[in-house]
Amino acid sequence: MPRRAAVHRLPMSGPSDTSAIEALFAAGALAPRDIVAILGKTEGNGCVNDFTRGYAVQCLRAALSRHVLPGEIDRIPMVMSGGTEGGLSPHWIVLSATEGPGSAIGPALALASDVTRPLCPSEIGRGAQVALVRDAVRTAMARAGIAGPGDVHFVQIKCPLLTSERIAQVAGDVATSDTLKSMGLSRAAAALGVAEALGETGPVPEAAIGTDLSLWSSRASASAGIEVMSCEIVVLGLSAEWSGDLAIAHAVMRDAIDAPALAAILPGAAPAAGAGPGTGGLVAVLAKAEASSGGAIRGSRHTMRDDSDISATRHARGFVGGVLAGLTGLTELFVSGGAEHQGPDGGGPVAIIYRKDIDP
Amino acid sequence: MPRRAAVHRLPMSGPSDTSAIEALFAAGALAPRDIVAILGKTEGNGCVNDFTRGYAVQCLRAALSRHVLPGEIDRIPMVMSGGTEGGLSPHWIVLSATEGPGSAIGPALALASDVTRPLCPSEIGRGAQVALVRDAVRTAMARAGIAGPGDVHFVQIKCPLLTSERIAQVAGDVATSDTLKSMGLSRAAAALGVAEALGETGPVPEAAIGTDLSLWSSRASASAGIEVMSCEIVVLGLSAEWSGDLAIAHAVMRDAIDAPALAAILPGAAPAAGAGPGTGGLVAVLAKAEASSGGAIRGSRHTMRDDSDISATRHARGFVGGVLAGLTGLTELFVSGGAEHQGPDGGGPVAIIYRKDIDP
Amino acid sequence: MPRRAAVHRLPMSGPSDTSAIEALFAAGALAPRDIVAILGKTEGNGCVNDFTRGYAVQCLRAALSRHVLPGEIDRIPMVMSGGTEGGLSPHWIVLSATEGPGSAIGPALALASDVTRPLCPSEIGRGAQVALVRDAVRTAMARAGIAGPGDVHFVQIKCPLLTSERIAQVAGDVATSDTLKSMGLSRAAAALGVAEALGETGPVPEAAIGTDLSLWSSRASASAGIEVMSCEIVVLGLSAEWSGDLAIAHAVMRDAIDAPALAAILPGAAPAAGAGPGTGGLVAVLAKAEASSGGAIRGSRHTMRDDSDISATRHARGFVGGVLAGLTGLTELFVSGGAEHQGPDGGGPVAIIYRKDIDP
Amino acid sequence: MPRRAAVHRLPMSGPSDTSAIEALFAAGALAPRDIVAILGKTEGNGCVNDFTRGYAVQCLRAALSRHVLPGEIDRIPMVMSGGTEGGLSPHWIVLSATEGPGSAIGPALALASDVTRPLCPSEIGRGAQVALVRDAVRTAMARAGIAGPGDVHFVQIKCPLLTSERIAQVAGDVATSDTLKSMGLSRAAAALGVAEALGETGPVPEAAIGTDLSLWSSRASASAGIEVMSCEIVVLGLSAEWSGDLAIAHAVMRDAIDAPALAAILPGAAPAAGAGPGTGGLVAVLAKAEASSGGAIRGSRHTMRDDSDISATRHARGFVGGVLAGLTGLTELFVSGGAEHQGPDGGGPVAIIYRKDIDP
Repeated sequence: MPRRAAVHRLPMSGPSDTSAIEALFAAGALAPRDIVAILGKTEGNGCVNDFTRGYAVQCLRAALSRHVLPGEIDRIPMVMSGGTEGGLSPHWIVLSATEGPGSAIGPALALASDVTRPLCPSEIGRGAQVALVRDAVRTAMARAGIAGPGDVHFVQIKCPLLTSERIAQVAGDVATSDTLKSMGLSRAAAALGVAEALGETGPVPEAAIGTDLSLWSSRASASAGIEVMSCEIVVLGLSAEWSGDLAIAHAVMRDAIDAPALAAILPGAAPAAGAGPGTGGLVAVLAKAEASSGGAIRGSRHTMRDDSDISATRHARGFVGGVLAGLTGLTELFVSGGAEHQGPDGGGPVAIIYRKDIDP
Repeated sequence: MPRRAAVHRLPMSGPSDTSAIEALFAAGALAPRDIVAILGKTEGNGCVNDFTRGYAVQCLRAALSRHVLPGEIDRIPMVMSGGTEGGLSPHWIVLSATEGPGSAIGPALALASDVTRPLCPSEIGRGAQVALVRDAVRTAMARAGIAGPGDVHFVQIKCPLLTSERIAQVAGDVATSDTLKSMGLSRAAAALGVAEALGETGPVPEAAIGTDLSLWSSRASASAGIEVMSCEIVVLGLSAEWSGDLAIAHAVMRDAIDAPALAAILPGAAPAAGAGPGTGGLVAVLAKAEASSGGAIRGSRHTMRDDSDISATRHARGFVGGVLAGLTGLTELFVSGGAEHQGPDGGGPVAIIYRKDIDP
Repeated sequence: MPRRAAVHRLPMSGPSDTSAIEALFAAGALAPRDIVAILGKTEGNGCVNDFTRGYAVQCLRAALSRHVLPGEIDRIPMVMSGGTEGGLSPHWIVLSATEGPGSAIGPALALASDVTRPLCPSEIGRGAQVALVRDAVRTAMARAGIAGPGDVHFVQIKCPLLTSERIAQVAGDVATSDTLKSMGLSRAAAALGVAEALGETGPVPEAAIGTDLSLWSSRASASAGIEVMSCEIVVLGLSAEWSGDLAIAHAVMRDAIDAPALAAILPGAAPAAGAGPGTGGLVAVLAKAEASSGGAIRGSRHTMRDDSDISATRHARGFVGGVLAGLTGLTELFVSGGAEHQGPDGGGPVAIIYRKDIDP
Repeated sequence: MPRRAAVHRLPMSGPSDTSAIEALFAAGALAPRDIVAILGKTEGNGCVNDFTRGYAVQCLRAALSRHVLPGEIDRIPMVMSGGTEGGLSPHWIVLSATEGPGSAIGPALALASDVTRPLCPSEIGRGAQVALVRDAVRTAMARAGIAGPGDVHFVQIKCPLLTSERIAQVAGDVATSDTLKSMGLSRAAAALGVAEALGETGPVPEAAIGTDLSLWSSRASASAGIEVMSCEIVVLGLSAEWSGDLAIAHAVMRDAIDAPALAAILPGAAPAAGAGPGTGGLVAVLAKAEASSGGAIRGSRHTMRDDSDISATRHARGFVGGVLAGLTGLTELFVSGGAEHQGPDGGGPVAIIYRKDIDP
């Protein structure tokens, strides 16, 4: 019996506002038990002391607890990415799947998740994390019935970070004692786990984590958050086992202003900038943003990494958000910061979920 | 004898780096005495305590003082706009004019400047400032030989702001005692002065400054800075009295993501997003950015005005910078924040200076 | 039958960490139903987009819901003050009261609370808020059995603020459309309500709110937060109807560095700076911090109000926190920012709760 | 012939305001050629992109260039320390020395300076920097006629930092590629150079820089700034070869709130907190501030190192500034951030220059 994916992109008025999700429940438009994962773009700083992510998760759990059993909640990845810089708009993306009659006319959007065991603080940003993520991606692919790595178009991961307390727990045996930097190493290790799983790299040596930027995945997107100790993985792709009108495509932005990369996969032929009639078919946009390590974009200096008032990840999200918003006319864009090993240095993967009736 | 404008867009490695300008002097590519105005996009926060603007001006003056007489320096507006959020790149735009043999085959880019008397702190953001700017715009238009308001395509103004000290000087008789807010009121008054001069509004009542957002200029761009007490005005337009290969065009972005407004005036037919071969003809891009007052863009909430960690002007510059960079492939964009009465609420004017051999 | 107050100052590892409170419940050291109010110093920015306050309240409510009935939770003011700048340490202050045998040997610490009806956004920062707070202070004084205004030593208020959404709800009929400024006006109105209730001023005209800084309360402390629409009031004082070993005293710091004001009321004679053996008797320190409006402290310029990177309230909390920590040797200090009409301009009230066996 | 030191602490209205220094020149109260060094506390963020330091130095040089020869300016260390968080007040401290008739009745304040050769970016934060600073301290001690390490009470150093550009210059062969972190390593290496020179440690292995916090100097104070590539060293101490009424003393704060350490050396017996009549004799206060690496002060958690909105150095300066201001009644305090190897972890050296007629 074929499965069918649904994707709801919903506004939130703050990290505690789950009303749009609850309205779907009340209207019968979404069954709580069909939820596979929930992504959220919340309005914190996206860095170490961003409590909007934990707050949002707590509110999601409270909302879901009125509909499903506690054990069921635990198996739903809730990947909150903090930071709605610039005109980005806080929103939820609820991913769900149903089984039903009819035959698959796919390939169509396919999705599934997996959650690793909790990491020890010493494992964050190290080889152990790479291996855990790699195995979880494979598990999720199998669950989703995705035939091979070529059919995977986006892998979203939520991974843990280090805090002063966690560093103390393991007596300083950590990849870095800089808490902000730990977010980058955790994202780096997670992304390399995806790259291994998808065959984009061979086995990655621990020393390459966060340093050898020639190694990267074209489909990984990792966010670090204080509220998790496990890695939560959501795999999205295409599968003949799934039916429905949704599809997914991805591209790699080679730098922060590589709008043509996205333009090439937008639904509708030859979309005019920002006004593509085809963008009406867009359901969700998922992208990574990053300040290039060399301090320049196409040879012109940027100041993101030398700004001690605003972290580079905040700069990059708002700026790349502008690039994507100009092209799509949308501001509910899941742009997440920190793209270590996620696309080339300074660039990053971008994926769109769209309705198939408007072919890409 | 026709005049001819030149525009040099030059990188800077910091607010004190005038080496690219001095290299032009040394190479004989630019005569210091031909300079009409210098714009600079510097890497401060663009708000009250942004000293990169004053520092840059001081360095420019030191560089020029080796070539021209002190009195000549004083008549050159140096409009520094702080804030290179996101991938925006610090740069200078040097505007110059020469007279010479040959006949005008215009219309071509025409430009001239004027500087008002120093304002009293009590005048900042009030009717007196509107009137001073209005008269200075008309003076500069006449100097540039621009026939009428319809041929004006951009008016850049540098205007003063209030500090705690300046407020105390006039015993608190000021438009606002909030120093950050004073920047907005000063920009507002300056923009309305342009609107009056260009006939875009009738006489503006003082109470409308900063409040009646239905009044706006489609060509004003104002920046407030701690380093000036006068208003410095640079008018750019087209005139049959000028020759050369440069032209200017402008558009109004109706909101922060209105990429099509700019796309419509980019040189080259039907430019593909971000890759327009025509963008090779771009010499400079000048734009305003602003967070819409209603807290939303096309119905989706933004968080720029509720963020107490990063000022809304910084958010808006980086985000709109992304919109424009995606379209033009450039990051040396003169995007300046705070667009009160400069275009519609949440949008703003954008102008391009380009080589005419690629028609717009 | 006399009442007896208890005050527990407890650490938190984050806004969601209520474990220290729950440990008291588990140990039988505190009965949930005896709680009168909970103050919390959380680690957000203390400004508009500080979600640590709402998150902490939500966690407190979840913790209490396992012990008391929902209706009982609603009557407990939970006053979260965001901002632990500098070395300030996030903590809870749980205020409770029991009735029991024995005779009052007072005066001793007395406390009670009241909560106003929810305010309409249009009422925030206006006369209506002043009146609501004034009446609530009187109600709480009566509940606490505090004989007169002279026996009130601290009044803590949590009051609402404006957001872009709330402003839109009432079509812009608000005291200010600047969300950060709305926090100040709300605190201002609340403080003047206390001043009226304690007879420190006569009836306050609406125009004086936030402007006439000669009007102030020596015992008001107001915090604004996005998570409330009511004003929540906790009154602390001395009453002969209460017994126990706790007492309270207050002083007014005349400027941000007025350490002697606090030194004069610290328990123990002639405490040496920061090392007073008497400070062992300190149970809690409650204070307001503010950047003086004139831009100077004792004639020397400060830069807090001209800093567009860090809000003045954050600067002031960290700095005054240092003044108080140097004197007391403690960093779990309830220093709250924004002292409009709470003490003189640039200064603020400070109160200590201490054990009486070491006389002040 | 004995020498005599003078110390002028002077206000500035901004980084470009040298008027108070020029007024001394005009009044004949200070001869430009007698200046040994100028310290400045400027109002930037004190981090990588703090241009107030370079701006102030440029303005100082312009002011001095009207009085002394260019070569003479180059030998004057100008140590700008950015960051006047909290109520700290921007100010200059001008150190000068004269020779004259009369006999030394010392010991009195003695001072001298030295400047190292420019460092290569690869040397910053490494052993080469330690050695260069060590030797320069010894040179300056000899120049000042300070008999031995025990008579040195403060060593102020200005040292360089890494930027993206400088890292690229040496193809990434740097101690760290994190520009903010490079400031810490540069300060660390400089401080260890002082420790070696004063015999507080033996030879320091390169691996200890920034990591072995058990190694520290009780008298080093290092600031990193983008405007220098050399290390500039100013040594202050007591010497029998100097006369006059000024003296210097130092103490080590063992943590951020160790007010008693300063109280013990304040002039005047048993000063009451913040109101010591003896503080009238204070001429300058020089101190280091730092967020303890363990995330706690006396067992209570602080949040300085987990705050991604405000850098830990800014938090620490404002907070320790409050501690010192409460005790001294002054806000013109030269509190500089980043105390790696400068005092114990979380604490730091503090020195006072005072008039001897009020004995310490």
